[in-house]
Amino acid sequence: METLNKLLIVGGTHGDEFTGVQLLDKWKKDPALIQRTGFTIQTLFANPNAHRDNKRFQDCDLNRQFTYSVLSDCTLNNYEQCRAKVINQEFGPKGNPKTDLIIDIHNTTSNMGPTLVLMQADFFNIKLAAYVIEKMPSVNVLFEDHLRLADHAFLCSIAKQGIIIEVGPQPQSVLRHDILEQTESMIMHLLDFVDLYNRDSLPKLPDSILAYRYQETIEYPLDSQGNRIGIVHASLQDKDFTLLSKSAPMFALFNGEEIYWEGDYDAYPHFVNEAAYYDANIAMALAQKVTFSIP
Amino acid sequence: METLNKLLIVGGTHGDEFTGVQLLDKWKKDPALIQRTGFTIQTLFANPNAHRDNKRFQDCDLNRQFTYSVLSDCTLNNYEQCRAKVINQEFGPKGNPKTDLIIDIHNTTSNMGPTLVLMQADFFNIKLAAYVIEKMPSVNVLFEDHLRLADHAFLCSIAKQGIIIEVGPQPQSVLRHDILEQTESMIMHLLDFVDLYNRDSLPKLPDSILAYRYQETIEYPLDSQGNRIGIVHASLQDKDFTLLSKSAPMFALFNGEEIYWEGDYDAYPHFVNEAAYYDANIAMALAQKVTFSIP
Repeated sequence: METLNKLLIVGGTHGDEFTGVQLLDKWKKDPALIQRTGFTIQTLFANPNAHRDNKRFQDCDLNRQFTYSVLSDCTLNNYEQCRAKVINQEFGPKGNPKTDLIIDIHNTTSNMGPTLVLMQADFFNIKLAAYVIEKMPSVNVLFEDHLRLADHAFLCSIAKQGIIIEVGPQPQSVLRHDILEQTESMIMHLLDFVDLYNRDSLPKLPDSILAYRYQETIEYPLDSQGNRIGIVHASLQDKDFTLLSKSAPMFALFNGEEIYWEGDYDAYPHFVNEAAYYDANIAMALAQKVTFSIP
Repeated sequence: METLNKLLIVGGTHGDEFTGVQLLDKWKKDPALIQRTGFTIQTLFANPNAHRDNKRFQDCDLNRQFTYSVLSDCTLNNYEQCRAKVINQEFGPKGNPKTDLIIDIHNTTSNMGPTLVLMQADFFNIKLAAYVIEKMPSVNVLFEDHLRLADHAFLCSIAKQGIIIEVGPQPQSVLRHDILEQTESMIMHLLDFVDLYNRDSLPKLPDSILAYRYQETIEYPLDSQGNRIGIVHASLQDKDFTLLSKSAPMFALFNGEEIYWEGDYDAYPHFVNEAAYYDANIAMALAQKVTFSIP
């Protein structure tokens, strides 16, 4: 078992997601809150310019710039593309990183509660998920392991292990007290886990956990000219991680009609009606429920 | 009794409040939905540039530019200041308007439900409030009649009567199906009311209604350098139009302390933790409950 020696906690990757920025500020004033023995924990305010402008990003989504192709192409030089290269140099480099684990703090306008997004269903992540669920049963665990970690474009993909924390619902450019507390609790449990993991002192964990695994992305319905013709149906709004029954309404069209879910599996929607995904015409993602045995 | 002959329905006064923009689009495709006999109803997409940029405004808040001083000063010429002058010329002018009633459609990130904001507690508005509450009991009626209509800086202040519809919670840059339906229902009830009012055919209304009256604005706590040191307390979040008990927690400070409500009246918070009011450091507004006898 390899220990984790260098951690990085990131906030403000999206400038209008305030929780991470606020926690960084808190920890700057009282660094002892995130100090642990046996490993170093650094922090990074990833996109200060976007936060100053109270926007998700200045030129393009920072959390989609950490691909090998963007990181290696100096002609891609807008603000976020430059920032990605600098962050990769400092905390990566992707593929051969000096950072063992990146925890990147996000908010969502979707009703996802406190969600732990894990990129690899390996021994470390499954144990970590089990530990956090034991400590905080309201946490949803979502595996986005349809790609290898390094094939993701996320900031956290430049480290050996990458975790995204998504907590919602929180409107853009708002700080909610409940969301702030949930996020801070999750971070503390994650740091405690790494500490226990490193010392091979994990408590007894359950035999298995229930989690979600990303399956597909659902787009808004469009007409033949590419105009959006509907929205997420009221019966699905705020129902993140709730089973979407076969033939349940998915979209309300502006003409009064409805579109139903006709998939062939038990789907668990998440990122339902997330504000930041309108540009990409994404209405929600769907997951399947999975059980992991604890190794 | 004077009849109302010219109505204007406004959407997109704030570019990132999507409900009004969507309804305007719907009514453009099917104008009969907002046609009534005996009076004309026009529509206005107030801030198309801000909507194109997916922002509240381009240069300054359009819904604060309709003062006599801005409207009469040609040296105040940023986008919203110009747009205000054009709208005033077309649908006002303030003080001597050709428009009898403006209904301006807004969204809020606060949990205010469907709220009718009325600027004058006169015969027309009290009857109107009673009618809408009868048809749609979930509606909150908020009187902002601490100023005369013309002393407000709102777009709707340029007409003889001005109404703001605020419906939430809806994050900025999001369309929620439930909010869309609530807003459309309110508009239909308002148009029906004007029709019945003009024809002196109002149904029997209740003897009195309960409403809220704006009292004061509450700011976020600051330190001596002007930095924000706390947020709306979790126990108050989403509790718009719910009685704030004496000595109940109002703010959670980042240092772990709390600030309590110590006012000397029964306060009903609204616009609680509204995203757009962070710039002005406004945490919420407080109202008192009032009963109006129906004339």
